[in-house]
Amino acid sequence: MSEKVEQLKQHLYRYHDLHGAAAVLGWDEEVNMPPKGAEGRAEQMATLTALAHEIFTSEETGRLLEEAEAEVADMDYRSDEASLVRVVRRDYDKMTKLPTELVAEFSRATSHAFIAWREARQDDDYGHFKPHLQHLLDLILQTVEIIGYEDEPYDALLDFYEPGMKTAEVRALFESLKAGLLPLLEAIQERGAAVDNSFLTEQSYPVERQWELTEVILRKIGYDFSRGRQDKAPHPFTTEFSPSDVRITTRLFPNFPQAAIFGSIHEGGHALYEQGIPFKFARTALGHGATLGLHESQSRLWENMVGRSRNFWRYFFPIMQAFFPQQLMAVDLDTFYRAINRVKPDLIRVEADEVTYNFHIFIRFELEQAMVNGELSLDDLPEAWNEKYRAYLKITPPTDADGCLQDVHWAHGTLGYFPTYTLGNLISAQLFRRVRSEIPDLEAGFAEGEFKPLLDWLREHVHRHGAKFTAPELLEFELGESLDARPLIDYLTTKYRAIYRL
Amino acid sequence: MSEKVEQLKQHLYRYHDLHGAAAVLGWDEEVNMPPKGAEGRAEQMATLTALAHEIFTSEETGRLLEEAEAEVADMDYRSDEASLVRVVRRDYDKMTKLPTELVAEFSRATSHAFIAWREARQDDDYGHFKPHLQHLLDLILQTVEIIGYEDEPYDALLDFYEPGMKTAEVRALFESLKAGLLPLLEAIQERGAAVDNSFLTEQSYPVERQWELTEVILRKIGYDFSRGRQDKAPHPFTTEFSPSDVRITTRLFPNFPQAAIFGSIHEGGHALYEQGIPFKFARTALGHGATLGLHESQSRLWENMVGRSRNFWRYFFPIMQAFFPQQLMAVDLDTFYRAINRVKPDLIRVEADEVTYNFHIFIRFELEQAMVNGELSLDDLPEAWNEKYRAYLKITPPTDADGCLQDVHWAHGTLGYFPTYTLGNLISAQLFRRVRSEIPDLEAGFAEGEFKPLLDWLREHVHRHGAKFTAPELLEFELGESLDARPLIDYLTTKYRAIYRL
Repeated sequence: MSEKVEQLKQHLYRYHDLHGAAAVLGWDEEVNMPPKGAEGRAEQMATLTALAHEIFTSEETGRLLEEAEAEVADMDYRSDEASLVRVVRRDYDKMTKLPTELVAEFSRATSHAFIAWREARQDDDYGHFKPHLQHLLDLILQTVEIIGYEDEPYDALLDFYEPGMKTAEVRALFESLKAGLLPLLEAIQERGAAVDNSFLTEQSYPVERQWELTEVILRKIGYDFSRGRQDKAPHPFTTEFSPSDVRITTRLFPNFPQAAIFGSIHEGGHALYEQGIPFKFARTALGHGATLGLHESQSRLWENMVGRSRNFWRYFFPIMQAFFPQQLMAVDLDTFYRAINRVKPDLIRVEADEVTYNFHIFIRFELEQAMVNGELSLDDLPEAWNEKYRAYLKITPPTDADGCLQDVHWAHGTLGYFPTYTLGNLISAQLFRRVRSEIPDLEAGFAEGEFKPLLDWLREHVHRHGAKFTAPELLEFELGESLDARPLIDYLTTKYRAIYRL
Repeated sequence: MSEKVEQLKQHLYRYHDLHGAAAVLGWDEEVNMPPKGAEGRAEQMATLTALAHEIFTSEETGRLLEEAEAEVADMDYRSDEASLVRVVRRDYDKMTKLPTELVAEFSRATSHAFIAWREARQDDDYGHFKPHLQHLLDLILQTVEIIGYEDEPYDALLDFYEPGMKTAEVRALFESLKAGLLPLLEAIQERGAAVDNSFLTEQSYPVERQWELTEVILRKIGYDFSRGRQDKAPHPFTTEFSPSDVRITTRLFPNFPQAAIFGSIHEGGHALYEQGIPFKFARTALGHGATLGLHESQSRLWENMVGRSRNFWRYFFPIMQAFFPQQLMAVDLDTFYRAINRVKPDLIRVEADEVTYNFHIFIRFELEQAMVNGELSLDDLPEAWNEKYRAYLKITPPTDADGCLQDVHWAHGTLGYFPTYTLGNLISAQLFRRVRSEIPDLEAGFAEGEFKPLLDWLREHVHRHGAKFTAPELLEFELGESLDARPLIDYLTTKYRAIYRL
């Protein structure tokens, strides 16, 4: 073991412990906290974040980092030691630029903004949230200026969530994807209401049984409940406090069982990633999933390529029928399969089908760039949002609650995050194409309830690296590929041509 | 506002925030954490505790404290400023003696010990817990030597939980109480099975309805659910993260509804105290209940003097009958009242009646002194425990799970804590005697569901002081009394003579 690297690691344990503790407080805030608990919690979060920031950006870290860099200089780029030092350096250079006061104020502001957003969404009152969003945007613009950027301001934000990628690259990938998907979407729309899902939305599915079904599915795909738990939250998310405590949330609607099922599988995909990070990386910068795009590739792969596949439901549909005999006994597998893959331009991103989903992301990506570039005043955000929905999806949100207030991300101060969802879709298709070619009977296994071959492949090719590599690096090292829109376009086109009989 | 006091306050905000955060992690550990989550959690708790300790014991704190002391030198002893400085000084002198490594090791050891205790209790395997307890005892003895004491080692421990009291004083109070209660207990035991509670223990009370009943009661006595919540935990407790987030837990058994009802009222009493602390004290050393004895006086007052009174049930028994019509419609109020006040020497402290309860405390108090004085090896603890139960209560625990493993306290490393329960009983009787004399129709109000006069009186005479005063100080300032066993003996004798028709 390299002595200097070890010293750096041990010095940073506290930093990671504080982050783990803050994650517990964040989870509690969304799952359990009583309405008036926000004030004290905001101060506690700000203190944890500020202390963590102080430790990470201390001169001691800088000194240990330099010494460790000398020690790993001749090591393999892909070794654990060299990767740890490289990742810490990347974060250190970014974080030392941010003053502690700005970090603490950001933490405090997001705690308040989250509460305001929740109230604003409930009351459909964008005006109640706007001053909070403005304050966050001001802090974000300060951050952008302090961090700096080469080509455009949005690069500085994107780099927080998807290191190693530029806004221009993302735009190019998104334009390819848009060009590939638009003909498919138009062809589907011409087929009109060819797919019916009224048996899902016009019957009541008791939420307690939905809950049980999600837990059956999660267990079967490999989520380890001895190292995690599922709870209810208005906006589903995954969080990890340590490799042995990785929690997910889902939400339940009687007339929309898809929300719970695919929400749980999606968050389960994130959680399988975190539960698959080697224990040796615990309490270090490598001890979690790598970039958000890679994280989303795992959740979307499980949600869509697995969870919305016909073979998956060949196994699970009889189980679901047993849970809901009155609602589903008269429904056949093919009808069900087509219903859960119905394409319909609609308002809510997290419930969107695979084809329209990316358009929700294009909209947010474009609006965020406009906000950051000063081309869009927050006064005009609701209308700008609605205009984009009209342009891309030919629908108008009837309320801001289902419009620009629908996502929690901006309340968390995370601009630059949304594009990683579509990057995740791209990566998931690249990974899935490869694993299918390497394991020919993979999908036949799904029909038997066998998901371990897939999980093992992902453990081997993605999870075991922890946070060592950027998305482009991991694709290069494991697949020998660059990011590419083609596999996703091909996957979607093949799948939906069959479903819509195009 | 005093400038130096204000600087001291602001400097210590982080300390209190870290404690609030640690409390969230502790609550989560007992209510939510998946089985394997303990390892990472222990490290996080140790880091939070160590950082808090470093901040509190820093030279900066010492310097600000000295400056603040000069500033408050001429102020009223009872003023907020002088009290804050006095309380910080008391804690500072104690804490600066403890090395950071010992504090961190203690935190880590208690996290592990808690898990081991839970498993040991479940498997009735004292041997599984013993090495953890031995390790904690070793750390405690180190702590005692470092802190120092005047008369006997146990003083150093007692002073953590009941500052301003000596072991010898407690022993004297307990001997008076013992002398006063023994004749009553013997007289009751001669009456044999004069009170029947089989309709409670031999019928099934669905736990969901018990849960609802406890929430009705909590709301009625004034617990504010917008600043708290109730959950389930194997060992009920109250915890507060801020004045706006004060949580309680309870436990539910179908054949023992008393556990939930009186557990919830007891924890509710603690929580009413914390919810009654003035907001001006938030994030300071005054921002919570004062000593454990004073805290317990609040929980026991609500649990016993209110919750086990006939007038309380004149209001709530019809409600409880509506919740459990099959079980209770044929039971009259008097039968119910006597049943919930049945005196029966039994194994479990937290379910003991008011008369035998204090004997459970005498036993623990005596065993703890023997452990600390080196007169009792942990090898012999289970048998020593059982002997004391035979001597005082004439019963022998059939298992260690119901014997020396029943309480969580030792797993938390808290020796010196148990006597505060009986101190709380003494104080509750002193307070209740006074409020009854000041508000003559107080108890008639209970029968109408009116608890606000009592809560207001407690707010005014106890809660508003936060942690400013020790128990003897508060009794002196508010009642003009010293700690005294007589009011509790009188209260119990009067009550149980009537119930047992002695």
